[in-house]
Amino acid sequence: MNSDTIAAIATFPGNSGINIIRISGENALNIAQSIFIGKNEKNINSSGKRIFKSRYLHYGNIVDLDNKKIDEVLLSYMKAPNTYTKEDIVEINCHGGMISAKKILEVILKFDCRLAERGEFTKRAFLNGRIDLTQAEAVIDIINSKTDSSHQISVNHLEGRLSQEINNVIDKLMDLLANIQVNIDFPEYDEDEMTISKVKETCISIVNELDRLIRTADTGKIFKEGIKTVILGKPNVGKSSLMNFLLNENRAIVTEIAGTTRDTIEEYVNINGVPLRIVDTAGIRDTDDLIEKIGVEKALNKVNDSDLIIMLFDSSRELENEDIKILDYISGKKVVYLKNKTDLESKLNLKEYNEIEKEIINISVLNNKGLDEIIEKISEMFFKGTINLSNDLIINNIRHKNLLVSAKKSLEEVLKSIDNGMTIDFIEIDLKDSMESLGLIVGKSVSDDLVQKIFNEFCIGK
Amino acid sequence: MNSDTIAAIATFPGNSGINIIRISGENALNIAQSIFIGKNEKNINSSGKRIFKSRYLHYGNIVDLDNKKIDEVLLSYMKAPNTYTKEDIVEINCHGGMISAKKILEVILKFDCRLAERGEFTKRAFLNGRIDLTQAEAVIDIINSKTDSSHQISVNHLEGRLSQEINNVIDKLMDLLANIQVNIDFPEYDEDEMTISKVKETCISIVNELDRLIRTADTGKIFKEGIKTVILGKPNVGKSSLMNFLLNENRAIVTEIAGTTRDTIEEYVNINGVPLRIVDTAGIRDTDDLIEKIGVEKALNKVNDSDLIIMLFDSSRELENEDIKILDYISGKKVVYLKNKTDLESKLNLKEYNEIEKEIINISVLNNKGLDEIIEKISEMFFKGTINLSNDLIINNIRHKNLLVSAKKSLEEVLKSIDNGMTIDFIEIDLKDSMESLGLIVGKSVSDDLVQKIFNEFCIGK
Repeated sequence: MNSDTIAAIATFPGNSGINIIRISGENALNIAQSIFIGKNEKNINSSGKRIFKSRYLHYGNIVDLDNKKIDEVLLSYMKAPNTYTKEDIVEINCHGGMISAKKILEVILKFDCRLAERGEFTKRAFLNGRIDLTQAEAVIDIINSKTDSSHQISVNHLEGRLSQEINNVIDKLMDLLANIQVNIDFPEYDEDEMTISKVKETCISIVNELDRLIRTADTGKIFKEGIKTVILGKPNVGKSSLMNFLLNENRAIVTEIAGTTRDTIEEYVNINGVPLRIVDTAGIRDTDDLIEKIGVEKALNKVNDSDLIIMLFDSSRELENEDIKILDYISGKKVVYLKNKTDLESKLNLKEYNEIEKEIINISVLNNKGLDEIIEKISEMFFKGTINLSNDLIINNIRHKNLLVSAKKSLEEVLKSIDNGMTIDFIEIDLKDSMESLGLIVGKSVSDDLVQKIFNEFCIGK
Repeated sequence: MNSDTIAAIATFPGNSGINIIRISGENALNIAQSIFIGKNEKNINSSGKRIFKSRYLHYGNIVDLDNKKIDEVLLSYMKAPNTYTKEDIVEINCHGGMISAKKILEVILKFDCRLAERGEFTKRAFLNGRIDLTQAEAVIDIINSKTDSSHQISVNHLEGRLSQEINNVIDKLMDLLANIQVNIDFPEYDEDEMTISKVKETCISIVNELDRLIRTADTGKIFKEGIKTVILGKPNVGKSSLMNFLLNENRAIVTEIAGTTRDTIEEYVNINGVPLRIVDTAGIRDTDDLIEKIGVEKALNKVNDSDLIIMLFDSSRELENEDIKILDYISGKKVVYLKNKTDLESKLNLKEYNEIEKEIINISVLNNKGLDEIIEKISEMFFKGTINLSNDLIINNIRHKNLLVSAKKSLEEVLKSIDNGMTIDFIEIDLKDSMESLGLIVGKSVSDDLVQKIFNEFCIGK
């Protein structure tokens, strides 16, 4: 148990109705008793201190050290150990805006209590054994999720389904190791043969299981980050309209985020469960000509860096040099080809591009035609077959993927040793390595540094 | 009582630990029972519905209509009428970020429940009689407050201290009107003389009381909006350093807000209780020369529009044409004159500006010298004497001020009528007008339109 008490504002300060200040640790109750004056209730214990019913919303005022009223609040005290951190927790719901929460936090920090670090509440939940590391990581992934699907995956992880699966595998490896240990300690039993065949069998089955999980990581990455999509096409082909068409489909969940560089803007949109992350929407919007604007080299970089190209042809114009140049840029990438302006007289001839002609999708942004086909095509390209997000366990964390890969590699070493006829004590070390990699996923024997690094990605107040 | 049920996200969606979704109305409980699956508790009533203890934090999951888990939450049900709106309220604390709260709200809105309008929760608190209009307005002022002082004033109003004072005055006027009524109805009692002298005496005392309140409005406006301050001085005099000096004093509560036009940035800072709102910090930061950058005309507008000018002289340079030009611009305004760079050899001669020389403050940003004097000077200029924010009642709402002024005017009409020897029934109408103006402050007999207008200034979710 950590002995110090931490506090932070757990909501995003802004023009909103409510803010929450959260305190965790052994002084939480004492602080609440010192700064809260209840209305309509006067439960005082024998030492003159307020009695809070655990998990009950108490209505009253927060006052500063001079008893000056700061704000009207609802305060709840949650008694350890059945709390988020397994410590005593106090949560104060005050008015929104910039000032109330800040002033309340300032008073709290005058007591024996310090400002929480990023993710420190969740870190305590982990260190105090309420959740494991995959669940803690799920919390930050839920908060950071940009798409419904990515959110759904992380909610499953928060439930501990990944941990369960990993722990099952760890248990199996433990069993093997126990068997091997018996063999080494009591060689007179001479069960070598049997043990080896059992190890082989189990390892093969686990390798398959890990492989299945690893293979979901691509999907997980796509759901987490969206399919990085670049829309290309010569000027006036309708890139900007197509983009608005895609974004407007689900206006509610389009979020504009600032990219790493100032001139890049990306927008997320989720169409029928397919999460697109459309790159350089600013460029498209402003000039309708990405390549002209940023130069060939930068455009090529964007293309290289993308998961998907949407390439637009103009049905009403002939195939031009610019089209061909773009086709050169994007060769080797995943591309959806679209023929726009199909409402006009057709002049486009793609005879020399047989493959493209076969799969090109006719659309008319003007007539609201073709979106379903585009999405179906993308879904086919990236998800090959249906994915059931609520049932399938999907890896969406690169740390987990890397550890799964290394656990799998160690088991493959085991299998190789067996095939090479090594004695059983030789394979013990690789089995242990594999188990350790898996243990790191759920947070068994992780280093302090790693823990610090993971929780540093959190926001304050969680 | 409103019969429909409303819901909204009450926190600011962002990268934060917690979001709150709030439901109010008669379906709130039923919705909670339909979408919440509790952990560690299974209280079910005879009709198979979950029993929520009122005001208790229940731990569990929110699920959608297909029973698919959306998020892990704390849910509290507050039973009418002892709630914020006097209706049944359900509050759901879910994970922060963009998705969880949005998905939970989407499920809630599938029931017989609509999205709350701006300020609608507080509007219901008002319409259902829990708070009066000054208290409802205090809520939005608390949320919008940019300075600690403005926050403090509004917290006092939320307590109902202004209402109390206004209601006391209304009671006195009621008494007078009752007396007059008796006189008109039973003229045989012939207490005219006595009544008139009583009316006069009371009106004079009320006029003084209202006057005192009205006079606080300037202070209230300053605390609410900050002292709109422009820093002027020729290039290289140290405007930008002074500004940083002022802002750095209390870095924690400096907030950068976008102005009405894109090229204006204002920053709030509260130094020893004096709220400064420094205009055009961007201009100062970028070019160190406001006038050169935006042209004389615009600069003049900014000067005219400001409450305070801080004019900087350079102690190490002689008085130059540019200084004199600025002095011309700002004549007639409230100005604090500062002499910067007093650490260097003094060359500035202000003999021809006797008044300025008398009151100029020597500062040295470099040596961290002079800030206290600046603040003291400003405080003197704007607050003449000390203000005790926690005890004094201060008007910080222009609607209140205008109604106080018109209530006062009506009473002055009464006094005029008495002095002109009008009979008592003539003054009845002005007394009633006065009472009505005061009634509008606390929300007695206000029109629906006014109510709508006031609550439209709220944010969603309050």
